[in-house]
Amino acid sequence: MNTSLSIMLKNAPRLLNITSSSKYFLRRGIITETLPSASSASAKSSERTHTCNELSSALVGQQVALCGWMQRKATPQFLAFHDGYGRTQLVIPENNAGLLKKLESIQDSSVVMVKGLVCNSQAHQVGLNNGSAGLEIAVSDVSIIDDDALHHKYSDDNNTDEESPTTQNPHAPISFPGVNVYTERTHTCGELRGSDAGTEVVLCGWLQFLRMNKFVTIRDSYGVTQILIPEELADEAQLLVKAPLESIIRVKGVVATRPPAEVSPKMSTGEIEVILKEVDILNEAKCKLPLQVREFQKANEYLRLKHRYLDLRSPSMQKSLRMRSKLLMRMREFLVAEREFVEVETPTLFGRTPGGAREFVVPTHNAGEFFSLVQSPQQLKQMLMAGAVDRYFQVARCYRDESTRPDRQPEFTQLDVELSFTDRESVLALAEDVLQFAWPESFAPLVTPFPRITYRQAIDLYGSDKPDTSFENFIQDFTDLNDGGQSESRSKSRALVINNGAKNYTTSIRNKYDAFARTTYPDVRFLAIKVTPEWQATLKKALPSCSNLDALQARLNFSVGDLLFVSIGDIDRASMLLGKLRLEFAEPNLQRSFDFLWVVDFPMFEAGENGKLCSVHHPFTQPHPQDLHLLETDPLKVRSLSYDLVLNGCEIGGGSIRVHNCALQKYILKNLLGEGTERLQHLLDALESGCPPHGGLALGIDRLMSILTGSESIRDVIAFPKGFDYKDHLSGAPCDISAEDRKYYHLPQVTDHRNVAEH
Amino acid sequence: MNTSLSIMLKNAPRLLNITSSSKYFLRRGIITETLPSASSASAKSSERTHTCNELSSALVGQQVALCGWMQRKATPQFLAFHDGYGRTQLVIPENNAGLLKKLESIQDSSVVMVKGLVCNSQAHQVGLNNGSAGLEIAVSDVSIIDDDALHHKYSDDNNTDEESPTTQNPHAPISFPGVNVYTERTHTCGELRGSDAGTEVVLCGWLQFLRMNKFVTIRDSYGVTQILIPEELADEAQLLVKAPLESIIRVKGVVATRPPAEVSPKMSTGEIEVILKEVDILNEAKCKLPLQVREFQKANEYLRLKHRYLDLRSPSMQKSLRMRSKLLMRMREFLVAEREFVEVETPTLFGRTPGGAREFVVPTHNAGEFFSLVQSPQQLKQMLMAGAVDRYFQVARCYRDESTRPDRQPEFTQLDVELSFTDRESVLALAEDVLQFAWPESFAPLVTPFPRITYRQAIDLYGSDKPDTSFENFIQDFTDLNDGGQSESRSKSRALVINNGAKNYTTSIRNKYDAFARTTYPDVRFLAIKVTPEWQATLKKALPSCSNLDALQARLNFSVGDLLFVSIGDIDRASMLLGKLRLEFAEPNLQRSFDFLWVVDFPMFEAGENGKLCSVHHPFTQPHPQDLHLLETDPLKVRSLSYDLVLNGCEIGGGSIRVHNCALQKYILKNLLGEGTERLQHLLDALESGCPPHGGLALGIDRLMSILTGSESIRDVIAFPKGFDYKDHLSGAPCDISAEDRKYYHLPQVTDHRNVAEH
Repeated sequence: MNTSLSIMLKNAPRLLNITSSSKYFLRRGIITETLPSASSASAKSSERTHTCNELSSALVGQQVALCGWMQRKATPQFLAFHDGYGRTQLVIPENNAGLLKKLESIQDSSVVMVKGLVCNSQAHQVGLNNGSAGLEIAVSDVSIIDDDALHHKYSDDNNTDEESPTTQNPHAPISFPGVNVYTERTHTCGELRGSDAGTEVVLCGWLQFLRMNKFVTIRDSYGVTQILIPEELADEAQLLVKAPLESIIRVKGVVATRPPAEVSPKMSTGEIEVILKEVDILNEAKCKLPLQVREFQKANEYLRLKHRYLDLRSPSMQKSLRMRSKLLMRMREFLVAEREFVEVETPTLFGRTPGGAREFVVPTHNAGEFFSLVQSPQQLKQMLMAGAVDRYFQVARCYRDESTRPDRQPEFTQLDVELSFTDRESVLALAEDVLQFAWPESFAPLVTPFPRITYRQAIDLYGSDKPDTSFENFIQDFTDLNDGGQSESRSKSRALVINNGAKNYTTSIRNKYDAFARTTYPDVRFLAIKVTPEWQATLKKALPSCSNLDALQARLNFSVGDLLFVSIGDIDRASMLLGKLRLEFAEPNLQRSFDFLWVVDFPMFEAGENGKLCSVHHPFTQPHPQDLHLLETDPLKVRSLSYDLVLNGCEIGGGSIRVHNCALQKYILKNLLGEGTERLQHLLDALESGCPPHGGLALGIDRLMSILTGSESIRDVIAFPKGFDYKDHLSGAPCDISAEDRKYYHLPQVTDHRNVAEH
Repeated sequence: MNTSLSIMLKNAPRLLNITSSSKYFLRRGIITETLPSASSASAKSSERTHTCNELSSALVGQQVALCGWMQRKATPQFLAFHDGYGRTQLVIPENNAGLLKKLESIQDSSVVMVKGLVCNSQAHQVGLNNGSAGLEIAVSDVSIIDDDALHHKYSDDNNTDEESPTTQNPHAPISFPGVNVYTERTHTCGELRGSDAGTEVVLCGWLQFLRMNKFVTIRDSYGVTQILIPEELADEAQLLVKAPLESIIRVKGVVATRPPAEVSPKMSTGEIEVILKEVDILNEAKCKLPLQVREFQKANEYLRLKHRYLDLRSPSMQKSLRMRSKLLMRMREFLVAEREFVEVETPTLFGRTPGGAREFVVPTHNAGEFFSLVQSPQQLKQMLMAGAVDRYFQVARCYRDESTRPDRQPEFTQLDVELSFTDRESVLALAEDVLQFAWPESFAPLVTPFPRITYRQAIDLYGSDKPDTSFENFIQDFTDLNDGGQSESRSKSRALVINNGAKNYTTSIRNKYDAFARTTYPDVRFLAIKVTPEWQATLKKALPSCSNLDALQARLNFSVGDLLFVSIGDIDRASMLLGKLRLEFAEPNLQRSFDFLWVVDFPMFEAGENGKLCSVHHPFTQPHPQDLHLLETDPLKVRSLSYDLVLNGCEIGGGSIRVHNCALQKYILKNLLGEGTERLQHLLDALESGCPPHGGLALGIDRLMSILTGSESIRDVIAFPKGFDYKDHLSGAPCDISAEDRKYYHLPQVTDHRNVAEH
């Protein structure tokens, strides 16, 4: 199995002559360069008096020396500090300008020796997640310790907690029958248990940690295992001892149970260690990596994206990617094996879709001829329906050039499903069934059917078409009490009560929301009223048209101390303004579950600029059968057969029953939307060629995964995302292309930029 | 379930007033416009005297009248003719210019009435696949029959053969448990059997055929079912009788077994028919579709691509797409469930890959900044390996702008697999296991391991690096007999014997191959020698340096009547010339099986222009461990750890063990290939960050599927392919974009074309 490698190793000396950059070309038994002196570093680090976890109030007033990493906070005077054992807070005396300057020059990732006095924290800072809460170190000196050496000695012990992204229970035996096939290893680093004692094993992975020149931990995607270097191999193991952390090693050894005192309940392999027999350094890492592989204290996102191959080693990324793969596989299993759907790959290089998001264009060798990258397979899946592929799905890559919206990705993934001879009820059931089947086993099972509200209800009650229903607090109407007669008007009086909200509504907060309302909803009258014992007088002044204030209080049920928001204007806009405030003033729900919700009965159209109609969903959406008669006379009142799926207040999917009748589709496009049909002729042709009634939906996999994993950004559930600036920091794309490519694709030469790129 | 539809139907009358284009808007019970008179057409078609299958030699000399379709042949005088029952040949008398002219004006798809005299064919034309072999019709008159009506009456009966793409055995009961969930139907059109008699069913599908105003066949992707219109429903069923074929219908009825004489063994549902109770026309097709949905006599490819939604209804397309979905699903099942691989979606908008195929560029809003569409996930999967995703796969969309190569597609699909801590043997085994597991059940099981030859053997024996091993006939060497002393030279004498090939090697064929050899291999001496009884004299003259002709004959084992090809020159090029001829003169193997073959030990490099080294595979390929010592001294002799998978002489996959050592990778890129490493810095960084040894491969799904389905082109296994001209005939893409988009993406305005697009 390892012939190629060992032969490469044998032949390596010749190669070493070729290039000066081959200093660390291959390690084993060949290179004897000493590393930057480990002993001098040890000398320094041996000055350490305590680890962070040893700090206690008994030490207040004592001088201590700590080794670890600093992390800056908002003020230069305070720094977080941690080592492999715990955390504390550093305080830099304000008058020590030299020390402050020195600190500025130290990278966060450098390992430092900090000397100072243990103090009690000031009372208001207790509980700031310091680890050693209540204590801080008044720093008298900081010095950088030789990174290279310390990299070995003070690596992050906590890593052993974060070992196994695929196991839920560290004590359960792991049995992935196929996981070692086709590899040199006999077991993964997360697999060995006490019952394996006596077995000879080969493990491959990353050198994670070294302790006392005797214990090594080796890590792979499945866990970590402790290797014990026996006395008689101390010499041979020197290359292991000297190899930088994160080097790739292969160890052969025999499994032994640990002495009872050393069994680690935190590690899935904590019952055993492997007594080393043979070691190979398969690929040496360089000594100082740009970021460290660990879960807490993540590097900033730019570094994480630029060195994504390092970030991917973190347990959270491993877990996300594996959960994502599993979720998609389960979705496929359901659709294919349980429901006879056919996965069809549709093209991404296609014609431009009229309307909708901005589509990337792809120039061709022929001047003036461009493909567009599809924003979804919408047209193509409808043509599959006309083409008798009556149960289609695809895990589809979609493209939108929304470079102005930072939490989007230019390419994203949706589970795209469409079927014939169906109706709305069936498609909703299908989506619920897919999610229920594919739902991660580690979560509570999904309860279906999901609750359902209409668009009208969502706006009226929550002021949002994707309401967060994990908490109540509805928006209420008091138009009848304020402006009773004109019930036919769209102008409504709306209110939202924030219980006990008055005390936190400071002047600066008030100014902020007043400005927001003024800027974003200038057409809506907005009031924020603190309910005081004198609320009657306040309201009388603020709402002179409201004659019956007692009735108002009874309706809205506010009490003294509450905060009352009022908005008066167009029903939708007045409600949406309150909907935003509703979210802003929500109590944080830390134990939140997964709240799914269907929003149905969206309007077909909304009024765009100059009163032109625009599609709310897309122009291929079937009107609601009960409203067909309004198409001609009052299209803005027509509801559609579209639906959105909302999870915890985030839209994660949507779809509709489509128009299958060619004449109706033409009428909607031409007569109602005023759009040309030339670029959709193929779709119209398909509709009149014998096209079944059909409908479907798409689930946004990135968003769904980010909610399932509790990630802050969809970038955390994508292996190689673009950054918030829409750039790929790994490859440096987008970047310039060659003059030859420009010529081939009829793109302006660089010198022409001024002429062409003039905005 | 059907509320939305029926309500839409009820509300339809209002809509009908809105638009003049709504003539065929909705049909049921609303529109009473008469179709072009069916009775007049019936009158005409009732003049038919025979169907094609009734023609026999007993009719020779009689006048007949046939109804059906014509299909032109190479000469205007002969036409193929068929109706729903069989085929015959039409002969147009040469002196009848009026008739010839009339024929020219008739479309192949029109239904015509042909009158003429039954004749015996001329002897040499018997057996030309006429159906009524031995007979032809000497035509006296042709007239177009009202298409609209005849569309009903003479649709292609043979369609009933082509019903069920998913069934192997028409008599086996079909049970797809999930296939009707979420739909209005109770059963598919391929599902009912005699045991279902008495069941009330709802079927949805395409109106396929109507016979005697009494029998209707309804088709969906799963089969066809015969519907019987009972007397008492004759009135209501008028709308069915009048609906154009391919309209979408829904029928409710009761299953009944057919009378024994009417049981059709050709249909999977041939035991039953459904007695109609209710019918709805869900969506009417237009009367004359641009191409007909049937398997034989396919329309030309342009029409098939332009109206792909019609072509997709053909059984062969249905079968291909469903087989493709199943194959990919089985591959995923194997990799995920059996071997613990993780599917990771990698970006397609990425940086440019140095070298390799031409990559599409995607302009961004920032002038001078372009993404490239990835030609494969190569760099990304290597970075996944560095990122501890140690068992990766992806069904990956790849892009190459090879618009000059007509049988390629600008976007294509590969199964991309990579894993860590592996070696060549393991990757080959993995590929074999995946294929064996996913192999269609209807084929003979795949035998593994696949045979394996080296690149050297492939060139020497077959003259090709993707040899077709389904037949033998090796290329042979006789350098020692011809030019014995210089065995170290690369110049070799090679020979290929075509048994009994002499007689067919006419002067025109000889000229063709001489020209080919002269043009493509000008540096190789090429001889084609017919082996006559005087072969000694011929060879003496042709190969004066070959002293021992008897030994030559004994070596090559040729006999009188054979054809002997000789090529003398560089060993690779001389062999490849003969390799081309070997394929040209292969006996067609009609009963061919699936011949897999691994080709291994490719050279790392080949000499490019100016003697510069080029990668044969790609620059990330690991050199063969046995040849590492030659990297410095003789890189052209270094073999690599790459491998190609060949199926029936077609390369369907390939891969390699990759370079995992940063210094070696830099040496190959900079010192050997002379390439800059700036654009690969992220990969080099990844290699020195702790990157496991790794390797993998990619299988070309489109090519594999086209071989599995016996398709002529990969376009037949892709739902919406680009045409041979790289254009999308469905949407008309690529096409021009708006001035606004040009400005946004800094592309030259149309008027600037002359300035920018000047080549």
